[in-house]
Amino acid sequence: MRYGTFDDDAREYRIERPDTPASWSNYLGTTEYGAIVTNNAGGYSFFQSAAQGRFLRLRFNSVPMDQPGRYFYLRDADTGDFWSASWQPVGKPLDRYRSVCRHGTAYTVIESEYGGLSTETTYFVPLGQRFEYWRLRVRNDSGRPRRLSVFTYCEFANHWKTEQDLVNLQYSLFIVRGRRADDNLLAIEINNHLPADPDCDLTKELGLYSWMALAGAPVAAFDASREAFLGPYRSYDRPLAVERGSCGNCEAYGDNACGSFQTNLELAPGEEREIRVLLGVGQADTVGRRALAEFGSAERCEEELRRLKEHWHAMLGSLAVRTPDPEFDSTVNVWGLYNCLITFAWSRAASLVYNGERDGLGFRDSVQDLLGVMAAIPEQARERLELLLTGQLSTGGALPVVKPFSHHPGRMKPIPEEEYRSDDCLWFFNAVPLYVAETGDLDFYRKVLPYADQGEDNVLGHLRRALEFNLARTGRNGLPCGLAADWNDCLKLGYHGESLFVAFQVRFGLGVYAEA
Amino acid sequence: MRYGTFDDDAREYRIERPDTPASWSNYLGTTEYGAIVTNNAGGYSFFQSAAQGRFLRLRFNSVPMDQPGRYFYLRDADTGDFWSASWQPVGKPLDRYRSVCRHGTAYTVIESEYGGLSTETTYFVPLGQRFEYWRLRVRNDSGRPRRLSVFTYCEFANHWKTEQDLVNLQYSLFIVRGRRADDNLLAIEINNHLPADPDCDLTKELGLYSWMALAGAPVAAFDASREAFLGPYRSYDRPLAVERGSCGNCEAYGDNACGSFQTNLELAPGEEREIRVLLGVGQADTVGRRALAEFGSAERCEEELRRLKEHWHAMLGSLAVRTPDPEFDSTVNVWGLYNCLITFAWSRAASLVYNGERDGLGFRDSVQDLLGVMAAIPEQARERLELLLTGQLSTGGALPVVKPFSHHPGRMKPIPEEEYRSDDCLWFFNAVPLYVAETGDLDFYRKVLPYADQGEDNVLGHLRRALEFNLARTGRNGLPCGLAADWNDCLKLGYHGESLFVAFQVRFGLGVYAEA
Repeated sequence: MRYGTFDDDAREYRIERPDTPASWSNYLGTTEYGAIVTNNAGGYSFFQSAAQGRFLRLRFNSVPMDQPGRYFYLRDADTGDFWSASWQPVGKPLDRYRSVCRHGTAYTVIESEYGGLSTETTYFVPLGQRFEYWRLRVRNDSGRPRRLSVFTYCEFANHWKTEQDLVNLQYSLFIVRGRRADDNLLAIEINNHLPADPDCDLTKELGLYSWMALAGAPVAAFDASREAFLGPYRSYDRPLAVERGSCGNCEAYGDNACGSFQTNLELAPGEEREIRVLLGVGQADTVGRRALAEFGSAERCEEELRRLKEHWHAMLGSLAVRTPDPEFDSTVNVWGLYNCLITFAWSRAASLVYNGERDGLGFRDSVQDLLGVMAAIPEQARERLELLLTGQLSTGGALPVVKPFSHHPGRMKPIPEEEYRSDDCLWFFNAVPLYVAETGDLDFYRKVLPYADQGEDNVLGHLRRALEFNLARTGRNGLPCGLAADWNDCLKLGYHGESLFVAFQVRFGLGVYAEA
Repeated sequence: MRYGTFDDDAREYRIERPDTPASWSNYLGTTEYGAIVTNNAGGYSFFQSAAQGRFLRLRFNSVPMDQPGRYFYLRDADTGDFWSASWQPVGKPLDRYRSVCRHGTAYTVIESEYGGLSTETTYFVPLGQRFEYWRLRVRNDSGRPRRLSVFTYCEFANHWKTEQDLVNLQYSLFIVRGRRADDNLLAIEINNHLPADPDCDLTKELGLYSWMALAGAPVAAFDASREAFLGPYRSYDRPLAVERGSCGNCEAYGDNACGSFQTNLELAPGEEREIRVLLGVGQADTVGRRALAEFGSAERCEEELRRLKEHWHAMLGSLAVRTPDPEFDSTVNVWGLYNCLITFAWSRAASLVYNGERDGLGFRDSVQDLLGVMAAIPEQARERLELLLTGQLSTGGALPVVKPFSHHPGRMKPIPEEEYRSDDCLWFFNAVPLYVAETGDLDFYRKVLPYADQGEDNVLGHLRRALEFNLARTGRNGLPCGLAADWNDCLKLGYHGESLFVAFQVRFGLGVYAEA
């Protein structure tokens, strides 16, 4: 039952058997552009919001698990045999197919060996960009010349709002277009006859457009229509185009769009080739072409990967321990902090289980989350802390969720009294002093920030109002009321039910406030 | 490209090739218990509401299409070869597998021939019941003794609310239980540790419980866990239990529940056997046992099928034409009216495309729908007409949607002024006189019915108030305003934009009112 090992030098986790009982996910990207990739290359991508900006489709609870994903299919042109560069979706017998997945710091590498050919696929989002790379290297280890076709595959959502895409097909099944913009560039356009919605903070700038490009080899053919690529009554394990050995050059008009480029390679014994997919949001004709021109080369891709690793490894380097227990060291030095940093980026919004529908930063969780990353990224943590302080309402209570991409401090609608959580703002008494202690930035207490709905105050004032909020809402025994919930969301205290937990928090807050 | 033919004598449509380019759906059941079944046995079942009561799962836009469904797998115990009694999901090559689907009036029959064995599967919901039958007949046409295993399969939703089941897995992935209640009876229980929600009209009586039973042959083994039955990294085309030849007797605790019974049959040359699945809502230990005892026998099943056909054929018999054009005859005598009757039952809520989220009867559509069925089912049409008249608010406008299972006339919340559709109640001027003309029931105009929110009036008063509603909401040119929409939902007139269409409707209504 051993599926993998820690490789702390590389800061990677190596999954050495692909047939894990459940999906093993990694996270790519930044708060601007996020992605999930599993050990079998399943997963999806999203712009800013996993609920409203999800442009690559994954079906929840799919059979088989975590499909579709970001696939490379390989086909031997002489025998017609085909497989995938990740074990799934083709799923060749594991006595003849070897695969290692290396989940790293915001990148994932999947290696395969099959039939004398080895592949290495690397998935990552370059720093500060709105696109992702899939880099495939194929090497001929068979000692004889080989003729191959490689097919890319991903499936685009029919609407970036996940629920529209997965459930409400009456609106979303007929509005996608997938067209070839250049030989090696596909444009995926949703509702492309409509102007971008000016009221949607997420998409008012770029609409519902995405693009996909192939670099490193000429494109032999393409399919932008899922139905054409897969063929009727088939699934991802046996696409018609791959079985036949040729894409059909089919654009998509409604139904479902996919991203498949076919390229044909001839490999001498020992020869290695590399191709790169670039996939991102924005209009293909402008954003896509520019990205391909600037980032399409092998050198640039390699350079971006190096920068990404350096960036993450530097963050993880903020703390290093060496103890007699190497597993403790792995957790402290790499994986604990890495996961805290991912949680900082996406809160709980990106997942194979949770759809992200709350679509923002849960208030209490996100204030708590700052504690784990304060030493590694104090500046970003302060920015987030300020965002959350402006999620506090002038009553002293908080919005339940703060959406970074559509938060307008001073202009947010207050929530009804009965929806307040009693503990939300009390977590500031943990986070604010920790930021000050980590940075020495005592002036932070004097920084003036707006409340979510109206008015403003310095940070100390925000803290005082948090205490006043709870002290003004006490119950029969003089203890703070639980309101909609205290820390334990699942316990229904009733609005007037008192919370000992919050009483302790208030007591702690009073002490912190007196000191500050 | 010819896939099927009309068989008007049987009132069936015969699909003679199973590899249709898209799913061909039929509808089973009544307004109490509904189901969709496709020509490849895909589909789902629901209690009262396709959005809130969907207890059998179908994934929208699945790959391959319309999976999962209600399957019988057959396995030759001597060779290990297996197939399904519908072409999909196993999908044997069509040069060796023959299949005919006969969509009838609220029942569907799928026949297959493969490897010397023929099957006939019949799906239907007996009149007035809250369960469905799947009847499988297997005949050995091979001229030699055969040993077979048959496996049933369906997949239960983790929550009856479709969106919870398909998208919000954080709440729904851990709450289902599938247990064996008797040798041949499975209990599927969602949140079974919680009392039924008294505020949910749909489930307050029976909770989120369903059951599945096998009759006609002893059960060799079962699986209530989808993961156990399918096996990891497999799909419906190749379940582990079927490939192996045995279910694992696995109950489900969280994850996903399925309904699989295995039975082993030995068939002499020419011998035919029949087994029956009964599947319904309610507690297995009470409702399920009672249903099995009363309805489990072959005779009762046959009798219920006969009654169902009689019932539908009688309704369709209300009008029969014979013209020189047989296709015109088919449409008028069978399929036009059949589809009107289905639309009467489910409005647009049950579909492979639309999730049913509006979850009730769209107002204007449902008033219009009455026109198509008035001659066939005048009494039911009158009941529906009365329901919709009580969906009219005391302002004279209408609720956008009326939910039969949770409509409380006189107590419904009014809608905001800006949400009124201008045409909703004007369709009464078509439907009410047609009911009176069809039945001679002139007293209907005097029948007193409550408004949705408050007050009451007789039908004539309802009609008057509908006219007054529009006459009080006119625009710059004195014509009725379009409000949120007129008949053309997609045209944004703006609240004050005037609608000529509604002007014509009002004019028509004034004439009808004057006559009545």
